[in-house]
Amino acid sequence: MAKGLQDVIANESSICFIDGAKGILSYRGIDIHELAQKSNFEEITFLLWNAALPTTAELKDFSHQLAAARQIPDDVIEFLRSVPKTAAPMEVLRTAVSLLSIYDPDEKSVFHTANVRKSFRLTAQIAMIVAMFDRIRKGKELILPDTSLSHAANFLWMLNGEKPSETATKALDVALILHADHELNASTFAARVIAATLSDMHSAITGAIGALKGPLHGGANEAVMHLLYDIDKAGEDPVEHVKHMLENKEKISGFGHRVYTTEDPRATHLRRMSEDLGKDANPKWYEMSRKIELFVKEEKKLNANVDFYSASTYTTLGIDIDLFTPIFAVSRIAGWCAHVIEQHDDNRLIRPRADYTGPAYPAPYVEIKSRQSQAKEWPPKPSA
Amino acid sequence: MAKGLQDVIANESSICFIDGAKGILSYRGIDIHELAQKSNFEEITFLLWNAALPTTAELKDFSHQLAAARQIPDDVIEFLRSVPKTAAPMEVLRTAVSLLSIYDPDEKSVFHTANVRKSFRLTAQIAMIVAMFDRIRKGKELILPDTSLSHAANFLWMLNGEKPSETATKALDVALILHADHELNASTFAARVIAATLSDMHSAITGAIGALKGPLHGGANEAVMHLLYDIDKAGEDPVEHVKHMLENKEKISGFGHRVYTTEDPRATHLRRMSEDLGKDANPKWYEMSRKIELFVKEEKKLNANVDFYSASTYTTLGIDIDLFTPIFAVSRIAGWCAHVIEQHDDNRLIRPRADYTGPAYPAPYVEIKSRQSQAKEWPPKPSA
Repeated sequence: MAKGLQDVIANESSICFIDGAKGILSYRGIDIHELAQKSNFEEITFLLWNAALPTTAELKDFSHQLAAARQIPDDVIEFLRSVPKTAAPMEVLRTAVSLLSIYDPDEKSVFHTANVRKSFRLTAQIAMIVAMFDRIRKGKELILPDTSLSHAANFLWMLNGEKPSETATKALDVALILHADHELNASTFAARVIAATLSDMHSAITGAIGALKGPLHGGANEAVMHLLYDIDKAGEDPVEHVKHMLENKEKISGFGHRVYTTEDPRATHLRRMSEDLGKDANPKWYEMSRKIELFVKEEKKLNANVDFYSASTYTTLGIDIDLFTPIFAVSRIAGWCAHVIEQHDDNRLIRPRADYTGPAYPAPYVEIKSRQSQAKEWPPKPSA
Repeated sequence: MAKGLQDVIANESSICFIDGAKGILSYRGIDIHELAQKSNFEEITFLLWNAALPTTAELKDFSHQLAAARQIPDDVIEFLRSVPKTAAPMEVLRTAVSLLSIYDPDEKSVFHTANVRKSFRLTAQIAMIVAMFDRIRKGKELILPDTSLSHAANFLWMLNGEKPSETATKALDVALILHADHELNASTFAARVIAATLSDMHSAITGAIGALKGPLHGGANEAVMHLLYDIDKAGEDPVEHVKHMLENKEKISGFGHRVYTTEDPRATHLRRMSEDLGKDANPKWYEMSRKIELFVKEEKKLNANVDFYSASTYTTLGIDIDLFTPIFAVSRIAGWCAHVIEQHDDNRLIRPRADYTGPAYPAPYVEIKSRQSQAKEWPPKPSA
């Protein structure tokens, strides 16, 4: 048995090609390095959903449709206002996406064109929800979307209430390109398992957000930043701190990857972004990250992954730590939608089997009066 | 590649043993036939969570804790009141469970005892939410939970506002026993994929509800009842109607199963239940179902599955058709929780691979001015 389905093929897919040994990531066969340098989020989203790069007219139309989809039902905004301000943004996002289905005119359909329409709405809405809840919890006025702005620029506008610099927009746009898809990662696979019951796209995306929330998935970049903050606060040498962690057999978040044995190709671009942004503002987080990266590489032969430099990049952009994973979702929704569309277009229920390790069948149904207590952790301890 | 992971082993598990060729289903090795006849929902939930049957004292304590967990935060009740009354109960349940996490004191923890505490709360709350939203949408007063009642009886009490008969309670209790777990079915597998990122139990259960909603999973019993209603309304002969459907190559919901090649052992009990309830009230739905079952068995060699007789059983109990899948969740939450606990107790990220079928790598990044339109379904058709 391959625990965690490691290296098990679960599906055919034409969306994302990865060669982990060679450090290759591509969308529809186009190398991620080329896309990171030449493309933008709207274009790669078109590519992921339509299996081809758009012509000038198609890209214009697509970008227009995505901007036009920047609408949230009043009831959902009301919900965002009613949530406790201390709620984790990922919990709020998961709940809001689930709620959106109730207002979506295509909710029940799993047909291709309905799925594409829902993909536009969800891609536009997820970015808006992340920005809006952050302003609401900080007691700030909501900012109306600006349809003249790109997806990345509009997100920063709705988050900060000021038009973003070109550098900031470019940095976020590249981060969105890099995070948009990654084959059958855990959240995408969760989305496909849900969609494969012919359940609807909102159900699948709600489940994907729940999976992304986990510290072994999207939550990892938040853990990286907590480490950097801890080191900075204590005024410690980053290498000494990490050395100490390794001696105590502690896990360093942001290193290693289930699929890549070489450098995560996304890390290359986020490292450069983190460095470039640092030059403009504050190089501290980049420099600290670089020292840790070189040490861990030398000491443990582990490569930095996509999460490692996204932490310093987002922090240098002035983004709160608990928005890192939500921003991952702002990008990955493009890939999630592509995978749900692909799943529904040629569906088969995803239903594996378990290797049973419990009491041998048939175990006796002992009458209650003759039973001995066997439960190990009963009663459970009360809440802290 | 085993499409849909058919017959692929994804995990070890000691919870549920199934032998599909022999028609065997067991919880912790104890045969489902014995449990359906001798046990009750509280006892099998203890069994699923604790890997042993409870002693008299343990069962008393467990039932007390489950009854004591019948509490919903006011904000969540407010949410149920604010949702459009036309919303599908499964959408409302999925959203409400996601919302509950924001109010759960153990939200962040994935430790065993915290997971058990959350399991009590979620098992109690899911039943309450289903009952409460049904009353709210019908403009009825909410009914306070009665801690003196069993889980099944309290659900019927909170749903109908009158104390249920012994027959009705027993029928629902048996249905809850039968649906409580089924190894790595799609919703449970979705829950484990989500939990395996070390995300929290509410994320996993929210995803599971989304998967259960699909017509290839929990939604199937609703489809069965729609068929029965259609036949009844048209005053047709059930066998002639189904014969016609088979001639048109239409799928008959409620027949066949990915795992069982013989009769689904749960169908045996639901058939008896449907028959017994019919004798007390209206035998129409049972009789119609039985005719269809015998014909499909004869004609297509397909066996009725768990969904087939749950439709007539629930309808004879006076339950609305769009509550069938939510009631499936009222039961399956017991198994979902057991699987999330087991996953977190010995975790490994679930991350399979895809068989890439897209354009060969490296596909060229053609400059935008040189591109030909290749997108097949662009632009998407507008919403109906």
